[in-house]
Amino acid sequence: MKNHLYFLEKTLKIANESVKNGNHPFGALIVQDNKIICESGNEVETRNDITAHAELLCIQKFQTYQSKNYATLFTSCEPCAMCLGAIYWSNINEIIFGCSNSQLSKIVDGTLEIKSEDLLLNGKRKIKIHDYSNMKKFKEIHINFWK
Amino acid sequence: MKNHLYFLEKTLKIANESVKNGNHPFGALIVQDNKIICESGNEVETRNDITAHAELLCIQKFQTYQSKNYATLFTSCEPCAMCLGAIYWSNINEIIFGCSNSQLSKIVDGTLEIKSEDLLLNGKRKIKIHDYSNMKKFKEIHINFWK
Repeated sequence: MKNHLYFLEKTLKIANESVKNGNHPFGALIVQDNKIICESGNEVETRNDITAHAELLCIQKFQTYQSKNYATLFTSCEPCAMCLGAIYWSNINEIIFGCSNSQLSKIVDGTLEIKSEDLLLNGKRKIKIHDYSNMKKFKEIHINFWK
Repeated sequence: MKNHLYFLEKTLKIANESVKNGNHPFGALIVQDNKIICESGNEVETRNDITAHAELLCIQKFQTYQSKNYATLFTSCEPCAMCLGAIYWSNINEIIFGCSNSQLSKIVDGTLEIKSEDLLLNGKRKIKIHDYSNMKKFKEIHINFWK
């Protein structure tokens, strides 16, 4: 059984690849039964599409598998309101993130700073959240990129 | 100069077309300098994609025009958290909606019920919001569809 950090480390690799491709440092992947089903980096710059966040693209891919079962989303950074909304409509019932929105908003100006837990209080569907923002490396990739 | 209701009525027509096409009753359009730049209905069922909301698709189309100027989004129903997040990242600086999320959540179970104004308090970017939920017809299309 692979643990949370095994998959979170992978989202950081995807985020680094996104930067190499000219995009922003974000990566996400979806796991079911301890297996990676799909993954995506940020593609905002290369697609010239402000909605091309790692989590949104990953959820769009996930749907093509037409799985009716619940799945877990790992993401290098806490989802923004857009991605969290998409998660809410999807079959994701667990989110595991590295950097928090609160940490990101201190590094990049103009983000929509909202805690996933607070936003989800407005809906009935229950989604578990695991916060690994105490680990420095998920914040560091943003300090290096945005400063 | 066309008024808000002229464009809002059009979003209702788009919403009705979406239903005819097998989708959900939502429609959106984007206006710049009093002209419609692009429009979209909901395509969740026909694309088999839970992210294919009218507003998100409309914003994605809008970007292809590569306009740097601000624009106004008209939507038959107040944007969900996903679409509001997308609006926040886009060049939309004004939202005009018909049915409210609060009204919709009383008709359809399981929505993420959040007021756009409240969600936007978490960001620095200012977006004007005009609420036409006092007009019954924007709610009625949902009562007819979901009940």
